[in-house]
Amino acid sequence: MIVTLLTDFGTADYFVGAMKGAVLSVCTGAHIVDLTHEIPAHDVHAAAFTLCAACETFPPHTVHVAVVDPGVGSARRPIVVAGHKHLFVGPDNGIFSYIYAREPDARVFHLTNENYFRPAVSATFHGRDLFAPVAGAIANGVDPRVLGKIISDYTKFPLPTPKVLEDESLEASIIHIDRFGNCITSITARDLTDEHLKRGVRLRINEHEIRSVRRFFAESAAGDDAKDQFFEVWGSAGFLEIAAYCDSAARLLRVRRGASVKVINE
Amino acid sequence: MIVTLLTDFGTADYFVGAMKGAVLSVCTGAHIVDLTHEIPAHDVHAAAFTLCAACETFPPHTVHVAVVDPGVGSARRPIVVAGHKHLFVGPDNGIFSYIYAREPDARVFHLTNENYFRPAVSATFHGRDLFAPVAGAIANGVDPRVLGKIISDYTKFPLPTPKVLEDESLEASIIHIDRFGNCITSITARDLTDEHLKRGVRLRINEHEIRSVRRFFAESAAGDDAKDQFFEVWGSAGFLEIAAYCDSAARLLRVRRGASVKVINE
Amino acid sequence: MIVTLLTDFGTADYFVGAMKGAVLSVCTGAHIVDLTHEIPAHDVHAAAFTLCAACETFPPHTVHVAVVDPGVGSARRPIVVAGHKHLFVGPDNGIFSYIYAREPDARVFHLTNENYFRPAVSATFHGRDLFAPVAGAIANGVDPRVLGKIISDYTKFPLPTPKVLEDESLEASIIHIDRFGNCITSITARDLTDEHLKRGVRLRINEHEIRSVRRFFAESAAGDDAKDQFFEVWGSAGFLEIAAYCDSAARLLRVRRGASVKVINE
Repeated sequence: MIVTLLTDFGTADYFVGAMKGAVLSVCTGAHIVDLTHEIPAHDVHAAAFTLCAACETFPPHTVHVAVVDPGVGSARRPIVVAGHKHLFVGPDNGIFSYIYAREPDARVFHLTNENYFRPAVSATFHGRDLFAPVAGAIANGVDPRVLGKIISDYTKFPLPTPKVLEDESLEASIIHIDRFGNCITSITARDLTDEHLKRGVRLRINEHEIRSVRRFFAESAAGDDAKDQFFEVWGSAGFLEIAAYCDSAARLLRVRRGASVKVINE
Repeated sequence: MIVTLLTDFGTADYFVGAMKGAVLSVCTGAHIVDLTHEIPAHDVHAAAFTLCAACETFPPHTVHVAVVDPGVGSARRPIVVAGHKHLFVGPDNGIFSYIYAREPDARVFHLTNENYFRPAVSATFHGRDLFAPVAGAIANGVDPRVLGKIISDYTKFPLPTPKVLEDESLEASIIHIDRFGNCITSITARDLTDEHLKRGVRLRINEHEIRSVRRFFAESAAGDDAKDQFFEVWGSAGFLEIAAYCDSAARLLRVRRGASVKVINE
Repeated sequence: MIVTLLTDFGTADYFVGAMKGAVLSVCTGAHIVDLTHEIPAHDVHAAAFTLCAACETFPPHTVHVAVVDPGVGSARRPIVVAGHKHLFVGPDNGIFSYIYAREPDARVFHLTNENYFRPAVSATFHGRDLFAPVAGAIANGVDPRVLGKIISDYTKFPLPTPKVLEDESLEASIIHIDRFGNCITSITARDLTDEHLKRGVRLRINEHEIRSVRRFFAESAAGDDAKDQFFEVWGSAGFLEIAAYCDSAARLLRVRRGASVKVINE
């Protein structure tokens, strides 16, 4: 059984190791797979995006543990989400918002059965004491129904979908910046017209206008496009991205996550 | 069989990869689990603390390889520590000091049987050439007794336990700072009186006084405590920690590992 | 089956997680092993060196996936390299140059059989959509011959071997700097005379002269050598390295990768 881990614990401390041990203590044969532990500290939105983009490729029955949990120890509930392909374990703080959007009929269980927790649950490290052993139990085949009751009032934050403005332009935002400095916008193919998709869109971000479209990062520009430093590319997570040829678009454009980006009409 | 790795090699070089291959060459079915490779270079004390805090959750028979080894190639001995639950492989430089304290009857073997080393042991990379293949052998079920003789003069550094001063105050220290900036003190529940445990202690560190106690990091303060920026929390490794609400206590208090912290009497 | 990953994706994004899932979807029982994801972005030379130094220890039939691929989406070919012990999957951009040098009779296949790719191959993420599923297939035992045709015009960059100058001195270069600041030169034992190997060589780098030789990093110097801050050591990857006692030679010597280093005659 495959158990993946996604946290904001970093890799320098004992946290990740302790979680892995806690999974393996319950399910010795589990194959532990690190998704990432470099989510910015407490950044539930970044965790939600990264989990959604990373988990899709995994085989059925994979158990994903996602712990970015600034409210650990508080009243926020520990949950298991049973989707049609995967299971997700983590805090009920919106970290599974993209999963809910993708799988509207996923069942969400409030984890209350302490028999599946570690003997003494600390108030500060549910990753180790609660989420990891529950993930191990699920990997062992324990039915989520024995772990707690189904709930329907789980936390879901609004996904950053583009808004249509009065002049029919589109107000979107940068939802992620990757290590190469590519800026991932909230724009998907569904937000654009066929015309847009064919000819590319005109984007405005931080006083820059971008309109070249390339199929991949190393594609060389020709003709009019050659003078453009920035270009659009359909990224591998399904969103329109803003890139710079062999450079960091985020740095050059001085863009941070959350920045506004506009699709303007011709 | 589970084989964990803890080193100061970082993850950018070939070192960790080469070690993993060396374990798997001997024990193809081993499940390699990274604890951390981000121990500060040559910092045996940090390695000892992190190993101790991370390894506890693992199932019986796990083999832990710990290589922070500034003296590689010198006369320092390679050893295996057979505890009652786990086995530990690494240099005899104090890296297992916390393990010895936790398991006083652990047996320590000096690794001398070269049949279990890689064919040509380099003088600079025992992680790959000696510790990894020995860990693979142990994971395969080889009895530590065939690897070398039991020794009793192994290196153990004094653990940073708090000292009682003349005025009955307690002199302790910061033994670790985690990625969130929480400062882990050397104070455990055993060092405090029942009264202390019930009401919390008064800590002095770098001219700051701290006396609020919270159960978890996100607990909101009430009444008198609300004005306090810093608070105490019992951390998941069993030590009293100093934290700041949604901020780095280490940065705000200008504290580094090794800093002195005092429990003062009322 | 063991599948290793080496990329320049970093560990903060969803890229590595998505690749792991794509391998496991095809070969559920694969044991995924991270070599490193910290190759400097787009640095094919660093990837080639690190892969070569890391992969050697792995058991037969290991599949190594190496994706540092600035030309993703362009005409550069995806390939599989079948060596006598291991298989390698990645782009045909020189990333396997050291492997070709070590195994001159390795067979190289151009990956064209789309049945082994993910259903919709993006133009930007062949790591996930092409290399990972092919690696999974090979781990499942698929013969490389069904994946595409053998090619002989694959990309191979000249390895940084030292050049003999007119005065019989040797012009070499720094091919890697590790996290400890050790400078790995392009000099192997084959490049030196027996006399050199016995007495050590005189190196000149950035106006410094180095001639002490030590067997390991912590070896204490005696006599004449004691005054030398820098020394030579035969590194674990088979190259002569320049080190500084308990310090970073690269920082102290102000050396970057690519820097020239000369073996000068007495």
